[in-house]
Amino acid sequence: MKGLFVSFEGGDGAGKSSILHEIAKDLENQGYPVVATREPGGIHIAEEIRHIILDPAHTEMDGRTEALLYAAARRQHLVEKVMPALDEGKVVLCDRFIDSSLAYQGHARGLGMDEVFKVNQFAVDTCMPDVTLLFDIKPEEGLNRIAANSGREKNRLDLEALDFHKKVYEAYQALAKENAERIKSIRADRSFAEVKTEAYEVLLPYLPHQ
Amino acid sequence: MKGLFVSFEGGDGAGKSSILHEIAKDLENQGYPVVATREPGGIHIAEEIRHIILDPAHTEMDGRTEALLYAAARRQHLVEKVMPALDEGKVVLCDRFIDSSLAYQGHARGLGMDEVFKVNQFAVDTCMPDVTLLFDIKPEEGLNRIAANSGREKNRLDLEALDFHKKVYEAYQALAKENAERIKSIRADRSFAEVKTEAYEVLLPYLPHQ
Repeated sequence: MKGLFVSFEGGDGAGKSSILHEIAKDLENQGYPVVATREPGGIHIAEEIRHIILDPAHTEMDGRTEALLYAAARRQHLVEKVMPALDEGKVVLCDRFIDSSLAYQGHARGLGMDEVFKVNQFAVDTCMPDVTLLFDIKPEEGLNRIAANSGREKNRLDLEALDFHKKVYEAYQALAKENAERIKSIRADRSFAEVKTEAYEVLLPYLPHQ
Repeated sequence: MKGLFVSFEGGDGAGKSSILHEIAKDLENQGYPVVATREPGGIHIAEEIRHIILDPAHTEMDGRTEALLYAAARRQHLVEKVMPALDEGKVVLCDRFIDSSLAYQGHARGLGMDEVFKVNQFAVDTCMPDVTLLFDIKPEEGLNRIAANSGREKNRLDLEALDFHKKVYEAYQALAKENAERIKSIRADRSFAEVKTEAYEVLLPYLPHQ
């Protein structure tokens, strides 16, 4: 028995988190055992690591230290939550995974995508997503959506300059090109219902037969 | 102005920590600016990371998570303490560094030396020791010394089985062979004074002219 590991990726404001939860509900209604998660996913050690990363007092934190800590939290979330669920044959939907680190830290923060990949390869070992849905939206439009959504709390990354988000976008495009087998691009500059329908259709062939 | 970065390595009971402090004192007496340190070296973020690693409640900690956390703590100690001291032209003596991770986690714990090296290469980037003193003592003898030294508090690694320490020894031998330019072996199965004298003689040619 082997489940299905799906990661959801994309710049901010692409709507991926909302769509992830809608798809999780739909799959559950169809009888699939589903785990919807995002790092650190309630894993105690991973939460403690995130606490160190996000502590605003840690202004002296080096970029490479941060990347290693993210990879450590990823590893623990994978071992304690994702891998056991896959072993039980479940469908695991994960909001952001390795590609986020490559795009945000590797490219946008300038640490180098190959460098950050090496560290994350150690973290994930052989457990890569079976398929990655990349919600493709131009950064200008993604940021406009966030700005229009007054109910959403802005996080640290939402507040980065447009230039930063453009780099994230470039990186995702490059990753999709290099990993065409795994990463499936979804046009996210449309209505929620349209995007969700496309995401679902892309996912369909990967789902185990009921 | 560029200082000298020296790491002290070896199995337990080789006496390297005591010799490091003696050599630090001697160098200071000769007028060298010296920093004697060991990870996490009082660096706040690195201390917090070590706290997560060493918390006895974290029995679920995965080996790869642990290796990533050690590398993160190493990076921060390097950036905040070692690199600034080297920039000021100081002699930095560091008790254990990258080779310890390769020997203990890579080989003895079975994560793979090449794998653990990749992660640590990301952590240290271009800042490798100029020279590494490897205190070479057979594990049986090192453990006997520890057992005879009733004043020394046993740590978690001292209590590992002999088999574990034999693997550490093997790994150090392999590292010394592969990195003959950097790693200088010192016969540590002799008196403290003899070992210290040899360590000092090996170090001498690396010291900047006063």
